[in-house]
Amino acid sequence: MKIFDRPGFPNPARIRIVLAEKKLEHLVQFESVDLIGAAHKQPDFLTKNPSGVLPVLQLDDGTYISECTAITEYLDNLDGTPTLTGRTPKEKAVIHMMQRRAEAEVLDPVGHYFHHATPGLGDSLQAFKSPDWEGRTVWGQREGDRALRGMSYFDEVLRADTYVAGETFSMGDITLFAGLMFADAAGLGVPEMLTALREWRDRVIELPNVKSRSGQTFLTDDLRRLGF
Amino acid sequence: MKIFDRPGFPNPARIRIVLAEKKLEHLVQFESVDLIGAAHKQPDFLTKNPSGVLPVLQLDDGTYISECTAITEYLDNLDGTPTLTGRTPKEKAVIHMMQRRAEAEVLDPVGHYFHHATPGLGDSLQAFKSPDWEGRTVWGQREGDRALRGMSYFDEVLRADTYVAGETFSMGDITLFAGLMFADAAGLGVPEMLTALREWRDRVIELPNVKSRSGQTFLTDDLRRLGF
Ligand SMILES: N[C@@H](CCC(=O)N[C@@H](CS)C(=O)NCC(=O)O)C(=O)O
Ligand SMILES: N[C@@H](CCC(=O)N[C@@H](CS)C(=O)NCC(=O)O)C(=O)O
Repeated sequence: MKIFDRPGFPNPARIRIVLAEKKLEHLVQFESVDLIGAAHKQPDFLTKNPSGVLPVLQLDDGTYISECTAITEYLDNLDGTPTLTGRTPKEKAVIHMMQRRAEAEVLDPVGHYFHHATPGLGDSLQAFKSPDWEGRTVWGQREGDRALRGMSYFDEVLRADTYVAGETFSMGDITLFAGLMFADAAGLGVPEMLTALREWRDRVIELPNVKSRSGQTFLTDDLRRLGF
Repeated sequence: MKIFDRPGFPNPARIRIVLAEKKLEHLVQFESVDLIGAAHKQPDFLTKNPSGVLPVLQLDDGTYISECTAITEYLDNLDGTPTLTGRTPKEKAVIHMMQRRAEAEVLDPVGHYFHHATPGLGDSLQAFKSPDWEGRTVWGQREGDRALRGMSYFDEVLRADTYVAGETFSMGDITLFAGLMFADAAGLGVPEMLTALREWRDRVIELPNVKSRSGQTFLTDDLRRLGF
C-alpha cells in the first residue's frame, strides 16, 4: 500500500496513528506531497482525490481511498478486529458519532480559521482559498470561535469519560487529537480552563502509538518556516 | 428505538430510507421536532444532540445517536449483514469515501446555500444562522456554486458506475440522493446537462425502499409553506 501525505500535518497524523495502532506501518510506503507549493491542487493529484486534500491511501490493486474515516475503516478492518471503529453496532454508532462531532465541531472549524483568518500555508496555497472573498476573515474568526465552543463540549465529555467515545481509545480520540494539534499550529491553542481536555491530551500524547509517531504528529518544519 | 426527526427533510430522509432497506421500520417510533420553531436549538433537544440538528436515534437503553453516518452504521450492522456500509474492508472504504464526498461536496454546501443565500427555514430559525454576519449571502452563494461543482463530479462518476460506490446501492447513494432532494427544495436544482446524475436519480427514486418512503422523502408542507 502507498500513502500520499505530508508528515506533520493533522489529517496525515490521524492515519499515521492508525497505522501504528494496527501495526501496519511496515506494509506502507509514504510519498510526500508538496502542500506548500499546492501540488495537491494540480490535475495529477486531483485524479487521486478530487477534493484536493491529504492523505490518500492507494491500495495494492490501484484504488485510491481518501477521507480519513474511510482510510481508517479500511485499515481497522483488515485483521477482522476493528478496535478503532467499533465491534458491535452500538460501539460503531457511538464512535462514528463522536468522530464526526470532533471533525465538525473542532478539526474542520480550526482548518477554516487557519486558512481564512491567518496567513495559512502561505501565498501559493492561499490562491486556492478564495482570497478574493471579502467576508473570509470574519468567517474564519467565527469558525475559530466555533472550534473553541467545540473544545468546551469535549472538555465536558472528558470530565465524565476516559476517552472521547467511552472507556477505549478510538477513531474519535484520534480526530480530536488532530484537531487540538491543528489548533496549536493555527495559533488558537487550547484554553487553560479546559482542564479535562488538556489532561486527556497529556494522556493521549503518552500512548505508545501516539508518542512513537510524535515526530510526525507535531508541527512540521513547514509550519515553523511559515512562522507558527 | 425512537427517532426524533421531521418528515420530509433531507437528513431525516436518509435514515428513513435506511430503515426501509433494513426492514426495521416496525421497531421504531417517530417523534416530530418543530424545526421551523427552532425546537432543536433549545436546551431540551441539545441534551440529545449538542450539534442541534436532526435526526437523532434513541436506543432502547437510552443512548442518543446523532449523525446519519453513525445511525446508519448502527442500523446496518444490527443483522450482521452490512449491505449499506460495506462488508469487506475495501467495500467499507469506498462507501465511506463516497458517502463523505457526497456530504462534503453536495449535501452540506446545499445546506449552507439554503440557510445563508435564501430565506431558509424562516425567521425563528434564521436567528440561529448568523444573520448579523455581513458576508453570509456571498458565502452562501459560493457554497451553492460548490454544490453544483460537486454534482458535476458525481455526474462523471455515474457515467462509469451504476451507483455512487460501484455496482451496489449504498450509504453513498442515500447521501447524494438527499443532497439532490435538498438542492431542489433550496431552488438550486440539478442542471439539465448532468444527464448521468439525473438518470441515476430517476432510477433511485424508483427503488422500492426509496419510493415507498417518498411521501417523507420529498418536500414537506413545511418547505412549501415557506415558499419553495
Ligand atoms: N476530510 C479530509 C480532510 C483532509 C485535509 O483537509 N487535509 C489537509 C492536510 S491536514 C489538506 O490537505 N489541506 C490542504 C488544503 O486544504 O489545501 C480527511 O478526512 O482526510
Ligand atoms: N451531519 C448531520 C446533518 C444533520 C442536519 O443538518 N439536519 C438538518 C435537517 S435536514 C437540520 O436539523 N437542520 C436544522 C438546522 O440546521 O438548524 C447528520 O448527518 O445527521
